Amino acid sequence: MNVLIVFAHPEPRSLNASLRDVAVEQLKAEGHAVQQSDLYGMNWKAQIDRDDFPSLAADVRLGVAQASGEAFLGNGLTNDVRLEQEKLQWADAVILQFPLWWFSMPAILKGWIDRVFSRGFAYGVGEHSEKRWGDRYGEGVLAGKRAMLLVTVGGWADHYGPRGINGPIDDLLFPIHHGVLFYPGADVLPPLVVYQADRTGESGFAAVSREVNDRMRTLFSTTPIAYRRQNHGDYVIPAMTLRDDLAPGSTGLHIHEAQ
Amino acid sequence: MNVLIVFAHPEPRSLNASLRDVAVEQLKAEGHAVQQSDLYGMNWKAQIDRDDFPSLAADVRLGVAQASGEAFLGNGLTNDVRLEQEKLQWADAVILQFPLWWFSMPAILKGWIDRVFSRGFAYGVGEHSEKRWGDRYGEGVLAGKRAMLLVTVGGWADHYGPRGINGPIDDLLFPIHHGVLFYPGADVLPPLVVYQADRTGESGFAAVSREVNDRMRTLFSTTPIAYRRQNHGDYVIPAMTLRDDLAPGSTGLHIHEAQ
Repeated sequence: MNVLIVFAHPEPRSLNASLRDVAVEQLKAEGHAVQQSDLYGMNWKAQIDRDDFPSLAADVRLGVAQASGEAFLGNGLTNDVRLEQEKLQWADAVILQFPLWWFSMPAILKGWIDRVFSRGFAYGVGEHSEKRWGDRYGEGVLAGKRAMLLVTVGGWADHYGPRGINGPIDDLLFPIHHGVLFYPGADVLPPLVVYQADRTGESGFAAVSREVNDRMRTLFSTTPIAYRRQNHGDYVIPAMTLRDDLAPGSTGLHIHEAQ
Repeated sequence: MNVLIVFAHPEPRSLNASLRDVAVEQLKAEGHAVQQSDLYGMNWKAQIDRDDFPSLAADVRLGVAQASGEAFLGNGLTNDVRLEQEKLQWADAVILQFPLWWFSMPAILKGWIDRVFSRGFAYGVGEHSEKRWGDRYGEGVLAGKRAMLLVTVGGWADHYGPRGINGPIDDLLFPIHHGVLFYPGADVLPPLVVYQADRTGESGFAAVSREVNDRMRTLFSTTPIAYRRQNHGDYVIPAMTLRDDLAPGSTGLHIHEAQ
C-alpha cells in the first residue's frame, strides 16, 4: 500500500524526526511504499494568500473559497499545492506527524491544510439537496483512505485525561480528526500521542519506538474512530443536526461517534 | 483602555476587513486606544523555525521550547516577536479576528501564537510545586486582560449548534479560548461568530455591524466565560485533574467551566 507522511518539525535531529524514521523503516519493512512531505525541509509556504492564485486578476477582490475553487477547476493552483494533492490521491494512508503547539498543529502544517485542501478538492464537492449535503463527513476525495495523527506533547498524560485541565486529548484533536480528516472522507484512526516528549530518555525512546512500530504494522487493520457518516440517515438535512432519537438528549463532540 | 486587534485575513476589501473597521471606529468612539496587528499586511512570518533564534549556535539541536525560553530570557527574540509581546503588554483587551478555516485559525495567526507566545512569556512561567503548577489557566502574562474572538464562518449556525454535525462552536473553539487565551491568564469573553459569512448582503452587513458595535461597547463589561482557575483549589496537583466532587462523574470540556 502507499503511505504519505506529512511531517512538521523544524529540527532534523528531533525526537519527532527519529520517530518518523522509525515509522518509515517499519512501513517499508511491511512492503509499503512511502512518500514524505517534510514541510520544513521543503520550505513549505505556510500562509494562503494572493500568490496562491496566480490567475486571479490584480483588481479582483480575493475571496479565498471562491478563488480556491476556480483555481482547482481551472488547473490554476500552484505547483507545490498540486504536488501535494497528487500525493494525497496516491496515498492509501496519510499520517500527519507534529508536535502539539498550543493545543493544535504547528502553523506550517495548518498552512498545508489551508492551501492543499482546496475547494473542489476537499470541500465544496458534490450534490447539495434534500437527500445529501455534499460529499463530506465520510465521503470525498479521501474516501477509502486511512488517516492518523502521530503527535508529541510536552505535557503529562494526566493533564489530557478525561478530567484533566487541558481537556481530553480526543476533544482537543476533534477539529483535526473530524473536521480536517473525516470531512473529506478519510477513515480516521485513533492517534498515537507521545506525552512528556521533552523527557524521553533512551529507555523511553525504545518504548515509544515499539509503539510506533506497532501502529505502523497495524495501519491497515486498526479499527477507525466510528464517526457517523453524514449522508446515511443519521442527520437531518439541511440543518445537519443529529436525529433526535440518536444519542437522545446528549450534546457535544461525542455524539458524532456511533456507539 | 487599550485594545489590540490581531487581524488575519488576506483581503483588505473583505467582510472581515470591513468588520474590523467597524470595530476600530466603535472602540475609538468609546475613547479607547487601538492598535492593530494586520498579519497579512505586516507580511508576518507564519512558521516558527531556526531563524526565530538568531543566538542559537549553528550546530546546536533546535528544541523549540528550550530555545524560545532562552531567547526570551536573554533578550534574543527577533524584533517582530518582541514588538507583538509589547503590544500584548500594552493592551487591556485583545481581539483575535479571523475566518474559521478547517475549524481553526488561519496558519498565519497560528504562527503568530506559536512565535509570540514564547516560553517564559506565555508558558513555562512560575513556581511548580505541590501547591501550584506554574502561572497558567487564570494566571500569567495576560492576567487582568480580556480576550475575545471575532470569527467569520462560511457554514450555517445550525451545523455548529449543540447537536450540529460540525460540533458545537464552543467546543471547536475551546483549544483557542482555554488553551491559547485563558492559559496565559486572560479573561475570555464569549466569541462573536458570524455565520454564512460569504452570503452577507447589505442588510446582513448592517445587522452584523450592529452586533460588532454592541460587542465593542461592552468589551469591558461583558461577563467572561467562567473557566476554573488552576491554582485555586479546583484541581488536584500535580495530576491537574478536576477534584472528584466538582462536576462529579462528568468528563469533557465543559467541566472546566464553573456552573
